[in-house]
Order: sequence, then structure tokens, then C-alpha cells
Amino acid sequence: MSGNTFGKLFTLTTFGESHGPALGAIVDGCPPGVPLSEQDLQHDLDRRRPGTSRHTTQRREPDQVRILSGVFEGVTTGTSIGLLIENTDQRSKDYSKIKDQFRPAHADYTYHHKYGVRDYRGGGRSSARETAMRVAAGAIAKKYLASLGIQVRGYMSQLGPLQIEFKQWECVGDNPFFCPDPERVAELEAYMDQLRRDQDSVGAKITVVADGVPPGLGEPVFDRLDAELAHGLMSINAVKGVEIGDGFASVSQRGSQHRDEMTPDGFLSNHAGGILGGISSGQSIIAHLALKPTSSITTPGRSIDIHGEAVEVVTKGRHDPCVGIRATPIAEAMMALTLIDHLLRHRAQNADVEVSTPRLR
Amino acid sequence: MSGNTFGKLFTLTTFGESHGPALGAIVDGCPPGVPLSEQDLQHDLDRRRPGTSRHTTQRREPDQVRILSGVFEGVTTGTSIGLLIENTDQRSKDYSKIKDQFRPAHADYTYHHKYGVRDYRGGGRSSARETAMRVAAGAIAKKYLASLGIQVRGYMSQLGPLQIEFKQWECVGDNPFFCPDPERVAELEAYMDQLRRDQDSVGAKITVVADGVPPGLGEPVFDRLDAELAHGLMSINAVKGVEIGDGFASVSQRGSQHRDEMTPDGFLSNHAGGILGGISSGQSIIAHLALKPTSSITTPGRSIDIHGEAVEVVTKGRHDPCVGIRATPIAEAMMALTLIDHLLRHRAQNADVEVSTPRLR
Amino acid sequence: MSGNTFGKLFTLTTFGESHGPALGAIVDGCPPGVPLSEQDLQHDLDRRRPGTSRHTTQRREPDQVRILSGVFEGVTTGTSIGLLIENTDQRSKDYSKIKDQFRPAHADYTYHHKYGVRDYRGGGRSSARETAMRVAAGAIAKKYLASLGIQVRGYMSQLGPLQIEFKQWECVGDNPFFCPDPERVAELEAYMDQLRRDQDSVGAKITVVADGVPPGLGEPVFDRLDAELAHGLMSINAVKGVEIGDGFASVSQRGSQHRDEMTPDGFLSNHAGGILGGISSGQSIIAHLALKPTSSITTPGRSIDIHGEAVEVVTKGRHDPCVGIRATPIAEAMMALTLIDHLLRHRAQNADVEVSTPRLR
Amino acid sequence: MSGNTFGKLFTLTTFGESHGPALGAIVDGCPPGVPLSEQDLQHDLDRRRPGTSRHTTQRREPDQVRILSGVFEGVTTGTSIGLLIENTDQRSKDYSKIKDQFRPAHADYTYHHKYGVRDYRGGGRSSARETAMRVAAGAIAKKYLASLGIQVRGYMSQLGPLQIEFKQWECVGDNPFFCPDPERVAELEAYMDQLRRDQDSVGAKITVVADGVPPGLGEPVFDRLDAELAHGLMSINAVKGVEIGDGFASVSQRGSQHRDEMTPDGFLSNHAGGILGGISSGQSIIAHLALKPTSSITTPGRSIDIHGEAVEVVTKGRHDPCVGIRATPIAEAMMALTLIDHLLRHRAQNADVEVSTPRLR
Repeated sequence: MSGNTFGKLFTLTTFGESHGPALGAIVDGCPPGVPLSEQDLQHDLDRRRPGTSRHTTQRREPDQVRILSGVFEGVTTGTSIGLLIENTDQRSKDYSKIKDQFRPAHADYTYHHKYGVRDYRGGGRSSARETAMRVAAGAIAKKYLASLGIQVRGYMSQLGPLQIEFKQWECVGDNPFFCPDPERVAELEAYMDQLRRDQDSVGAKITVVADGVPPGLGEPVFDRLDAELAHGLMSINAVKGVEIGDGFASVSQRGSQHRDEMTPDGFLSNHAGGILGGISSGQSIIAHLALKPTSSITTPGRSIDIHGEAVEVVTKGRHDPCVGIRATPIAEAMMALTLIDHLLRHRAQNADVEVSTPRLR
Repeated sequence: MSGNTFGKLFTLTTFGESHGPALGAIVDGCPPGVPLSEQDLQHDLDRRRPGTSRHTTQRREPDQVRILSGVFEGVTTGTSIGLLIENTDQRSKDYSKIKDQFRPAHADYTYHHKYGVRDYRGGGRSSARETAMRVAAGAIAKKYLASLGIQVRGYMSQLGPLQIEFKQWECVGDNPFFCPDPERVAELEAYMDQLRRDQDSVGAKITVVADGVPPGLGEPVFDRLDAELAHGLMSINAVKGVEIGDGFASVSQRGSQHRDEMTPDGFLSNHAGGILGGISSGQSIIAHLALKPTSSITTPGRSIDIHGEAVEVVTKGRHDPCVGIRATPIAEAMMALTLIDHLLRHRAQNADVEVSTPRLR
Repeated sequence: MSGNTFGKLFTLTTFGESHGPALGAIVDGCPPGVPLSEQDLQHDLDRRRPGTSRHTTQRREPDQVRILSGVFEGVTTGTSIGLLIENTDQRSKDYSKIKDQFRPAHADYTYHHKYGVRDYRGGGRSSARETAMRVAAGAIAKKYLASLGIQVRGYMSQLGPLQIEFKQWECVGDNPFFCPDPERVAELEAYMDQLRRDQDSVGAKITVVADGVPPGLGEPVFDRLDAELAHGLMSINAVKGVEIGDGFASVSQRGSQHRDEMTPDGFLSNHAGGILGGISSGQSIIAHLALKPTSSITTPGRSIDIHGEAVEVVTKGRHDPCVGIRATPIAEAMMALTLIDHLLRHRAQNADVEVSTPRLR
Repeated sequence: MSGNTFGKLFTLTTFGESHGPALGAIVDGCPPGVPLSEQDLQHDLDRRRPGTSRHTTQRREPDQVRILSGVFEGVTTGTSIGLLIENTDQRSKDYSKIKDQFRPAHADYTYHHKYGVRDYRGGGRSSARETAMRVAAGAIAKKYLASLGIQVRGYMSQLGPLQIEFKQWECVGDNPFFCPDPERVAELEAYMDQLRRDQDSVGAKITVVADGVPPGLGEPVFDRLDAELAHGLMSINAVKGVEIGDGFASVSQRGSQHRDEMTPDGFLSNHAGGILGGISSGQSIIAHLALKPTSSITTPGRSIDIHGEAVEVVTKGRHDPCVGIRATPIAEAMMALTLIDHLLRHRAQNADVEVSTPRLR
């Protein structure tokens, strides 16, 4: 209720500040009997981990996750899974200067007005460091989904002004940008190098795709699969927009063009992004998210302090010039968490349903 | 949990099929002592009501709402509010032909796979007729928000290829399109007339704005105000995309450009759309939503039936050629419902908070 | 959240005041394909209905329920089920005298302090009339449970000082007390006749039993089956205590006596009431509830009014001298609603579980 | 949803097995600005801690709790509070013998049927060791409640056959039984010594009282304060019954006797236990709970194994001969958690309510 829990049947509840002693999470509702180890989680954590290329923050966190409960003799037991990552590379002194100032476009001002008090070190709870636990929990969800043939993958589809066309999944893991076109990587590197020299930051667009999702997931009316996906993806730091399928391009489309016709051999197109009436159709589920440029830049900006006085703010510390670069595993996690939650919800109510109509792809 | 409830503290739970005997809702959590009458709800219901211009479905429903509980001697009592609208103009025979067919881009196919059984008359539960209850409940939320100086308003910002610049709130209610520029209305009329002649449909973009929202609304991490707004807006029939503030335009922006600087006199811009770190900043909250073209068109389309056989589908019945035209009051309702829910949630936890820092606009 | 919803996956949300125009409910999460008619609900409603013997309130309500959605061609569709009962025999003038007074042991005083405003006619929302909707929804739950071989039944096990031993289910429906021993009915009649002459009321104890519940229902730690049963049963008007199995008798038992030993042929006793560690064991689930004597008696009592001044209160109107007499169908409903909710929750998470160990009874 | 979370606005989510590496919890929704230290939590944890007298299990756990987030510079920040207790004195070898056996009256059999797999060491998740986290979270709730003048205290009111009359709060903390009558302590000691010699266990009854609760807490219909108290208290290991106020004694009372009359000077009695219509009246809230005798006794018992074969079980390991002895702080915690949750819920909806009627005690 207070915002630190995601999901209704497969729930993730998290805690932890950027510069506190640890990040932690409780994953509840995981089916029993799922083989699970810390290595399963570490793989995705390492994909998100900072400090692995010159294009992300230089904070170096090993992000070693421990499973403290809910797994016994290598499989999940169905009870709550406790996860813990100790913080090791906090440098809180970097932030003491801005204790009483509000960085523009940051959560400082809004947390201050909401709570009256805030852990100002590194953004406290509002830091994207919080997303580590999403990725760890998402890895559990992915593991179970994979056992049902469901695969969730993402890639960067735009970096600042540079649109990137999808070419192949194979190369996405081979470059620090999650770029799906190997021939564009050098261009992205050059763009980022110039951006750092400009002491500025830039936005990005990420695309996430789930393949193998059976038809029927999603609840009618308010908890449509697309609505909850939008919720999950928009809850990621810096996200300002979410699209399903053709998204905003649908506005200027005509019905005769947008509707995905069906034949016995399958759908003829996928403008809908795999969701009709809020329920999965069996086609690939496709979502796009827009991430804003981070506000933590060293170019001075005008702001106020807690007394309402004008100040000039320069954000020091170690920051990502494009938070979108590390966002792909986080977006995958939120889609996986949304899907597993809806899978369990669907199963609860509709376990008895048998349909003889063939499924299309 | 099964998708027919919105909100956590101020909750709306709905029922009703397009061609069933009635639509109904229960609004729970409304503060006591709010003056409320059926006329308060009827005003917004009439704004959404079909059959009021030639550009919407010709189904004629008076949509007379009754308040069955929760209001006593003209004010809310704090107990659950029961709402009922009887359906009067169902013509179910129109739909008997497509009982065993799946209309392309409709929820027929996905409901069939989810539930095994469906009320095929007029789309049953998946019909946009369901949104009447959202509008009724939204009117309750708006009434309470207005008492706190919070105003929620929307307008059409794009009809198919025609982008509409915001000019003034005054004229929005004077035309069937919710168009904020009186000089563009004739153009929109002409566009729609041609569209009907083409037997086709088209998408639209709606913009919703909340003014007067205090800073502090929204919960950290998963239940950010923008995430729940995205949830609510994406749950509206036909919506394929949601943006907060600059939305997808943020992707190609730089941090020095996107960040909204602050001075003692207020924010210098509002790229963020009034939300920072998932929490309202006190600026106007701005959201955009993309609605796809409705799939109910009379141009024949390829599909399959429940046996998996190929069929040609022509959607008869009475439909909106642009569902976006009636979507503005619905979008306002979802924003109002999201705001009141977060207002109550904020109040629950943070009632003791006192902040001396001046509030900016 | 505001208290008018029960359950998490199979949810019942209700509205309606004692003297308002109607009572209503939305049942969400019902599996699709369940045969259901208004007659199914009416049977249990008639068991609870007032005015059927001289031992209950003389208010005569037909309590005719209408199903407004969620059922199509005789079976549930999986969408939300709207229920409505119009109130017909309100006599609100009876209550105008006590508009500004607080009846002792009633909810008048507490509602006044909670909400500042209340519908004082017939107790408004705090009236036991609200339980009609529980019974209607419970009938839906019972119908589904019965299809799985689960039967929920209750009886009166004590009326005031008169303890009633269980003899047979057959006669429970044959007398107005839900008394399971036909030889005790005359004694109960005489007791009640004397009570009315005394212008007083008395408490009662109800026992509810579920047979055929499979092992495994109930969630660990906080949402144990017994905890949620206690929640549901204690939420019934006038209930002051709940026991599972041996209940308070367990306090003076020894472990060697209380523990239910197991053999390959089954459990040797059922002190636990069918629940171990919060999870159903496959034995009969047994719960007892204590109902207080109603406070609506014509014997004058001391109280205060809304100004804090002393007054003498005589509760006129039509009331039950023993609310426990009509409580059995309500208790059955709450147990059935709790069980179906846990059945769906169990199924969501544990659908894959296969256990070769034989089930005991 | 999966049972490891308590509360709706002030939520406690826990993890941890008896013999796993650690117990942990996340407390969400705590108001900001509450002074809080690990010492605040440790005080109650020490009251519950095992191994402090010869009458409880000889497992010796320091139960040192760490606060990992949500507290900054000595006060809560409003964000989620992470808590951790490392397990140090597990002796898992004690349990290897009963890996494939079900101890009578334990959760072994039901967990096995629910999940198919279980952590059998020391009862795993079903162990009362889990309650340490309830006590830690309850201490946070108590701290906040105390700042509003609300005090939650409990005592043992019966040990096996020995009923204990309440004498004074002062001595409750001075003996290992939480006995409120210093003159009875020697008798309890002797009873327990004999019980151990008998290799048996016994039940107990605990009474919990909240003083200073304002009128108005509790939601109508399903989430009444008494219903949620019953939920919370019944969720404690070994609890088989819950009473509010006069509880089961109400069954044989008459209305003229049970109703608590009011005068301008206050209520004349408190049969209701401080709750009317599910809402607090301002009187002391009084609840009683029945704890069964633990089933972990060394007297052999008949049972079956996972193959359904008959076995004789002797429960070794270190156990409490009366789990009720350590239950008082746990019961206090559950009442405090229930009260703070309802306080926040009440505040969310009814913050605007002003009532001029004087409050009674």
C-alpha cells in the first residue's frame, strides 16, 4: 500500500537506501519446487551492475545477492524468499553539500514535501540503486516463466536522437548498450563519449518483448495486462512514457490498418502488441518505454534550498549519463514480474477452463 | 484482484455487460460529509453519453444513474456508495451472427481463451459501455477534489493525423470533440464525415491535466503517482500508450534541457508533467494517452471462428468511428480516481508532516 | 480497504443501508462455467429471511435477489456478478425519536464519532440487514464448493443457557432455530416465549462445519485458514468470540491429549478442528461462534445524546430477541466464502504440486 | 496474498525459517519522523526471547535485530524499514530423523500436502520462531501508538487449569510467565516443573488490553476492528480461540445485562471489550486468546510417514512445554499492529471529521 510492493499473487516487497547498509527484498507467492540458486539471480544482477563500462556510473558494487529463506535443498518451498545485497561502495561525503538543497528534476523536493525528512545520501530511497532488487526478483520470475516456455527479453531501441532498428537478439548481450544491431555500437560509443565531454545526459527508449505467453493472461476492466505492464514499467526510475504495440502511432492509424486480422495459420500482423481487451492473445507481447535524461549532471542549474532561497546546484558524485543504458534488465524484470503475477491470477480463477479452439501465434 | 476494482483506499468496483440488464458500481472509501446528488454524477455521464452527435454511436442510452446507498440527507456518510444504471437500448439481435466468430482486434478471441464462455452481445464485459461507471465514480472524486482546489480537465489533442494545439478550456465543452481550439472544429467535423463515408475508424490522442494538486502525492518505488496514472489510463478501452509530461519526447532530450529548474518564484518549465520521483511536485500534472482506431468497422476483415476455421467478418451494430471522441471524460475520471486515492494514502501515513519550505508552482 | 469487501481472490463487496432503497453486492473472481440461477441464491436467503417465525423480527422482506451481470445463458462468465435486493418494508418513522440519541451497546455512538454523520434509520449500514448479501454471495460459493464435494453446514449449539448437543443434520432445517436435536425444539420455543415476555434478549452459540475440504488450504503465517475464518466469522454482527476445534477448552488440555494422532486409516480424533499450522488437514473444519444478546430491547436503558446529555433510551421498532437464531446461514456463508477464497489462492500458487502420500480423513 | 504480510496500510511482511540463515521483515507505511532505534525493538524481543528461564525452550538465540533501512539520523523516513535477525543456534541434526515423518498435531502433514516440499528442520516456516519478527514490528507500532497515548499490554490469564485473576500491571514483567498476580508465581513454577517431569505440555490463555484508543477505529462490515483483531491473534501459532470482551460468556447473557450503559460520566461497564459495531468506543479494548498445548512432546505418539505407513514419533529437539508462556509479547504485537493499521485507515478517510460530542471512557 505504501508503495514498496509490486504484484498481487507473486509479490515483490523491497527496502533499502542508496547509501544505507543493505538492499533487501521479500518475494512471496513463488510456486514451490522451482530449482533456484543465487547464481540464477546473479546473472541478471551482473547485467544491470554499475561500473562495468565507461558509459555508466563508476560506483563499483559487486551486488552479491544472498537468498536467506524460501529455498531448501535447491528448490523453492513456496514460502517467502528473503533476498539481501550489502552495500559496499557508498561514498556519502559526496552528498553532504546538497543536504539542504533540492537538485532540479530530482525527487529531493517532492520527498521533502511528502515526508518532511529524507535520507539525502545518494538519493536515498529514490535512487535507481533500488532497482537491483527488481532485477533479482525478476530473475526468479523469469526462471519459472522459462519452464513454461515464456521468454522475456529487451533491447535499446533509441539512444537520444539515434534510433536503433532491431536486427538480432544474439548481439544484445555483447555490448554495454543492449543494442540489437552490432553495426551501430561504435556510433553509440562515440555519441556517449561526446555527451560526457558536454557534461550532459540524454534519454533513451527501451523495447521489451515476451514470447511464448499463452492467450488468456490479464484481467478485465482495470487490471488489464497492458494496464499493469504500464504500471510496472512506468514505476522504473526516469520512465516518462509507455507504449503497447504500435502505441502512439495508433493515433493516426485507421481501423482497417490497425486491426490484426486472423487466419487459421495465425495473426497476419501485431499492431496490438499481443494484447486485446487487456488479455494476452498468444502473440508476442511488445512494450516500449521512454526514459528521460538523468538530472544528475555537472552543468550548474538553478534551484532553491529548504528555506526557499535561490541556490545554484552542481550535482557531483558518480552518475549515469544515460540511465537508459542499464534499464534493459530492469524493464525485463518488470515485465516478467507482471506476467508471472497474471499467470497465477489467471490460474486461480480459470484452472477449470478447457477450450478446443486452436491457439494462434 | 479479478480486475473489476480500481484504487486501494478510494475504490471503484464495477459490474455490467453491454447488453445485460444494468451497469452498477460500488464506490468505497469516500470521505463522509461530502455534499452529493445524482445530478453531480449525471453531468459527467451526459458528457460521455452516446448518441449526442452524429460522430458517435447511435445507441441512445439515457444513462440515468441512481445512488442506492452511502448518501443520506444530501451528504456522503462514509459507507459504500451503490450506483446503478439500467440498460434500455440494447439490440442484441445485431450480434447473433458473430456469436461463434472472433472480430479482429476485439476481445472476443482473448475472452474466449480466458474464460471458455463469454457474453458475446455487444462485447459483453469488454464493451466500452463499462466506462459509464468510471465516469460516475470519477464525478464523486472530482467533487471532493474540487473542495480542495484540485481541478481535473481533459481535451482532445489529436484526431487521426490532425494535431490540435491547446487554446482555451472554455470551448472544450462546446463541441462534440472536446476540442480546445474553436477554429479547428469544422475541420474535425469534415474529417469525421469523410471517415464515415470510408466506412473506417481512426485513433485519437487525449490530454488530461490536473491543476492545484499539492506536492507529496504518490508513493515511492512501485506505486508512484505516474505509475498508477499509467495503470488507470491504460486500463481504458483502446488505449495503447501513456505519457507523463514530455513523454517519448524525453528520449531525445538532454538533461540540461529536460530538467525543470526552480527559483523562489516557481518552476521555470514543466517537462516532468508535475511528477518527480513518482511524487507530485505541485505543478500541473499532465498526461497524454493514445487511443487506437476502433476495430468495429463495416469493412470486411479476415478472421477465424471458434472451430479455427477461416471466416470473413463484418461488424454491424452501432459503433463509434473514433472511440477517442468520447474518451475525454473517461480519462478525466481515471485521473481523478487516481488522485483521490493517492490523496487518502498520503494522508494516512503523512498526516503529521509539517514542512516550512514554501511550495512552488 | 474501507471495510466493505471480503476475500482476496473471490471477493464480495457490498452496499446498502437498512432503510435505504436497496442492498447490493458485487461478487468478483467466480470461476466461469458454474451453473447459477437466482433460485440458487434465493434458497439460502429464505433461510435467513426475517418474519418467518414469531421468534424473529416481524419486518417482512421478501428479499428477492436479482442477478444483474456475470451470468449468461445459465452459467457464470468469470466477470463480476452484480446482485440487487430492493428494500420494501422500511418503516423509518420508528426511528426518528432516536436520531440524536445513542442506543446502548449499539453502533450509534461509534459511527457518530467515526464519520460525524450517520444514517440513523434502522441502524443504517450497521444493521444486520447487511448480512443478506453475505448469504447471497455465500450461496454462489457453496454452489462451486459443492461441485468439488465440499459441504458447509451449521447449526445452533447453544441458546442462552441451553446447550444443545448435535444429533443429526436432517432436522436442522425443520425448525426456526437451526436446532440439530428435534427433541429440544419445544424447550427452545418455550424459552423464547418467556424471553419476549421479559422484554429481553439473549445470546447464542453457532457451530459451522465444512466437510470434504482437501488438505492444503490456508496460507502460512498471517493468512492461515483459521485466522481468516476468525476474521470472517467475527465480522458478523454481534459475534464476540470464535473458536476452531476445541477452542478455549484447549487451554486446560495437555499435549498428549490434544494432539490428533494419525494412522494409515485416518486421524484418531479432531481436537484441531481440521486445521494444522493454519492449513486444512482434510478433516472436517469446525468453528464455533458466540453471539451476544441484541441490545435492541424495550427495557429502558441509560445513555447520552449527541450533546453529551443523559437520556433514557427505549428501543422500539422490530427486532430479533436473539440474533443468533438467524445467524446460522450467515455463518455458513462466511465459512464458504473463506474456503473458496483459499481454494483459489492455493490453486494459484500450488497448481503444479503433486503428492503421492495418501490423504487421511 | 501468500500469507506473509499483515496489515493494509502499516504492513509487516516476513521471511525466515527456524533453521535458515536469518529471519527478516519489511515494515512499510510507518509515518515519518518517529524516533526509532534498534534498542526500541530489542526490548520486546528480549521479552519474547527463548532460553531465559527453565520453563521455555533451551535454544539460546540472542535475537539481535538490525535495522537496515527506513531510519535516518534516528527517525523514521517514511520509507520501508528492513529488519534482520541472524539465526545462530540452529541444531538441525536434531530433526533429520523425522524428515519423512509427520509429527502429530504439527504442520508437517499439511505443509507436505500443500507444497509437496518443506524445510523440515525445526518446523521451517511453521516454527514459532517466525514470531520474533512480529514482536520487532510490533515494537515499532507500539512506539508510535505510545506517542498518541495508546498503550498495549498483555498478561497470562490462565495456565492449563490454573486461572489467574488480574491484580496489577507492575509485576507482569517480573516473572517468566507474564503473570499479573505476584502471589501466584510460585504455584505456576511448581506446575511447570511437574509438567516437565510428565514429559507433557499444556495450553494457556492470554489477555491483551489496549488503553487510550480513541473512538472511531475499525471499518464497517468486514474489516471491523474486532474481526481484524481476531485475524491477527488467531494467526499466532497454536491459537485456537479469540474472544473480545465477554466473548463466549455473552452466549448466556441477557441484553439487559450485556449492554454497556452510558452516562455523561462514562460507560458503566465494558462487556463489549471496547468495540461496538466493529468500531472502537474509547473504552479499553480487551481480547483473550486460547493457546493449545504444544505438540512437541517426548511422549511417543502414533503417526504416518510420507508413504502413508504407520510410525511412532517422539519429538526430540528443544521445545517449549507451554508455548503460551512466551506468547504475551506476540499477542501485544498483533494488537498493536492491528491498531496502528486501523488508525491510519481511519485517518485516510475521516481526517476531516469533527465531532463536538464529548468522548466517554
